[in-house]
Amino acid sequence: MNKIILNEKELPKKWYNINPDLPAPLPQPKNPEEKDNISKLPQMFSSGVLEQEMSMERWIKIPKEIRKIYKRIGRPTPLFRAKGLEEMLDTPAKIYYKREDYSPTGSHKLNTAIAQAYYAKKDGAERLTTETGAGQWGSALSLACSLMGLECKVYMVRVSYNQKPYRKTIMQIYGAEIVPSPSTDTEFGRKILKENPEHPGSLGIAISEAIEEALQNEKAYYSLGSVLNHVLLHQTVIGLELKKQLEIAEETPDIIIGCVGGGSNFGGTVLPFVKDKIDGKLDCEFIAAEPIACPTLTQGEYRYDYGDTAGMTPLLKMYTLGHDFIPPSVHAGGLRYHGMAPQIALLVKENIVKARAVSQKSVFESGVTFAKAEGVIPAPETCHAIKVAIDEAKKCKKTGEEKTIIINFSGHGLLDLQGYEDYLTGTLPENNK
Amino acid sequence: MNKIILNEKELPKKWYNINPDLPAPLPQPKNPEEKDNISKLPQMFSSGVLEQEMSMERWIKIPKEIRKIYKRIGRPTPLFRAKGLEEMLDTPAKIYYKREDYSPTGSHKLNTAIAQAYYAKKDGAERLTTETGAGQWGSALSLACSLMGLECKVYMVRVSYNQKPYRKTIMQIYGAEIVPSPSTDTEFGRKILKENPEHPGSLGIAISEAIEEALQNEKAYYSLGSVLNHVLLHQTVIGLELKKQLEIAEETPDIIIGCVGGGSNFGGTVLPFVKDKIDGKLDCEFIAAEPIACPTLTQGEYRYDYGDTAGMTPLLKMYTLGHDFIPPSVHAGGLRYHGMAPQIALLVKENIVKARAVSQKSVFESGVTFAKAEGVIPAPETCHAIKVAIDEAKKCKKTGEEKTIIINFSGHGLLDLQGYEDYLTGTLPENNK
Repeated sequence: MNKIILNEKELPKKWYNINPDLPAPLPQPKNPEEKDNISKLPQMFSSGVLEQEMSMERWIKIPKEIRKIYKRIGRPTPLFRAKGLEEMLDTPAKIYYKREDYSPTGSHKLNTAIAQAYYAKKDGAERLTTETGAGQWGSALSLACSLMGLECKVYMVRVSYNQKPYRKTIMQIYGAEIVPSPSTDTEFGRKILKENPEHPGSLGIAISEAIEEALQNEKAYYSLGSVLNHVLLHQTVIGLELKKQLEIAEETPDIIIGCVGGGSNFGGTVLPFVKDKIDGKLDCEFIAAEPIACPTLTQGEYRYDYGDTAGMTPLLKMYTLGHDFIPPSVHAGGLRYHGMAPQIALLVKENIVKARAVSQKSVFESGVTFAKAEGVIPAPETCHAIKVAIDEAKKCKKTGEEKTIIINFSGHGLLDLQGYEDYLTGTLPENNK
Repeated sequence: MNKIILNEKELPKKWYNINPDLPAPLPQPKNPEEKDNISKLPQMFSSGVLEQEMSMERWIKIPKEIRKIYKRIGRPTPLFRAKGLEEMLDTPAKIYYKREDYSPTGSHKLNTAIAQAYYAKKDGAERLTTETGAGQWGSALSLACSLMGLECKVYMVRVSYNQKPYRKTIMQIYGAEIVPSPSTDTEFGRKILKENPEHPGSLGIAISEAIEEALQNEKAYYSLGSVLNHVLLHQTVIGLELKKQLEIAEETPDIIIGCVGGGSNFGGTVLPFVKDKIDGKLDCEFIAAEPIACPTLTQGEYRYDYGDTAGMTPLLKMYTLGHDFIPPSVHAGGLRYHGMAPQIALLVKENIVKARAVSQKSVFESGVTFAKAEGVIPAPETCHAIKVAIDEAKKCKKTGEEKTIIINFSGHGLLDLQGYEDYLTGTLPENNK
């Protein structure tokens, strides 16, 4: 079989919540000194997602309305066997990839965007605000709002707004309002522009602006595309589908690989397999692939830190490079995050998840290899997972092991071709330092 | 059901050849006066496709190797129900769309590219040459050659080469050699550059260069992405899958719609349904959607004409705007063709296929409506079919008819976002005249 498909009836009816099954209690968010950021959360997030954030229920029902939209956007997604890549590498390993790029916005992000839009609507909200850097998350939330009948306001880092005009176009097609950040729409943005009218912006500033608008508008919530428990929860639809597909293929995974920025696509894929590993029922490596340029898991400290640059969020216990760390501008914009989802951080701390950092050149080389063999052009972020998979498949060639390797193919690279162009023309810096 | 999927075993084993079932004999290609272009065909095309071009066999076996690659690139493709669009239009009509955008290169073009690469390889060729304008065809042939282990040389119209750098990047990722046309690689190219070193190029010139290289290199064949019988034959895999999917959905189509440039995606979708219509077993309208800016079927003459601008091909009996007609530069680059596949032309002449011309603004408006409702952003070409489908669904709202409308969703628009940007900012000319 080249692809394992599930029919719509096999779409998971529940999300899986790892919280009760973690090997140690998840350290809770806490307030910074002299501030009470936690009490602002109910103004920022819908009651539905806040409840999920703290829930200790193992299984959480996916509302019918969300399942309906999941089906409309093409879930369940197929699992492909990468036979072309296996042949090209001449490896005894079996490589599979889960096609999250089949989403209309081209990545896994829509899985949580739809859920967040649903719960906001249920609370009577009329509007969601968010930030976006490279634009994957902004595109997903824009479409989710269009499908749910909500307004969407996206604060897009100014340098991306100017350099990636087509991401803006996509969000506008879906009816969202996009402003370059820093903007004149918020007090924080105006303050920064007053100091420097040409400020290029940053993700941290954009987050602060989006939160400010949500806090000041009773009918608006703020929406985050990664890191938080409820985001990873929504993404478990990926891993739950994958489990069924591996059963159909009669495969036991030896290695599951995903790239990590905030940790949502990796978490969504791996979390449903963790308990079996802890219980000794599954002997499987979980490998989180990150850029050498932003080595949160391999070089960061495990401690409490802010989720954003400006310090508006509660403190989260996670691996962090420091909330003021500015990663080099590698093409994998989605992996340029100083922190990590607390659930993933804990699993790394507990040696259940391994991390590996890979260089920018090696990931584009892997992306080109994959594209030539399989056709699909991976997003720069996804190339990190592919690089690790190729390395593991090459090891199998040496040892003769027939390992089953799973890649979460988190997104396609059709809107990130400049990185490939730089790679092909030899102008790509090793790690953009 | 939101989508009707077929498993790999249901991938068609044979292509359908309409030639024996046409309502009148297909007029054969003929030589222009004082030239013998037909005798050059065996140097230009592989024996496999030339045999198919003339074949009167109704069913032609799809070689195992081609079926293997069809599966690897994701065939069979799903058929989606456009429930979001139906709700938005508040129509009693049922709208389905066949997802040819699920191909790794984003359109139906790969269906014939793979077959042409296979037959060339079988004849011992090492290289395929072709032309590309907007780049959809060039991308597909580049990948097909990569998958089959052939070299690929693409002559890309210089103005597109400069304006659409990312299409070039995609072809280079797949390992193809791309030159801007007119180029210094051919006698014809050098002649034109000598007269005008800044010549912007045209599809006609690029075709001539690709043919010249193929004729002069014993190990190379030329490859065309539309118009010819064998191309439409390979594309019937779309319509044959669609037939099975409609049976599963227990639907009888009332209207099948596709956009037409050279006619290959439309032909591939509709041809397998034609005999049933001729035999009175199926009461279904087949509508070919074309741009007002290039109204081949609605304004052209049915007569013999060259397939290319330079007159290097045999004469084909078809609807034509004249082989020297230069269409305005509408964003739907794939529909900017002066002629039409002879098989489709005959069916229009015989009143089995209807044609409808639509304006550029109306097609982008339809594309935005579709994207908001369904998520997927259609290629500008595909928007033509969607415009006609929306018009038909609105008629159903007036009459109360529950028609079943099928769209061939020939490709996504992620590499053609400039047209959407122009539409959204109000700078899109009605028909770019």
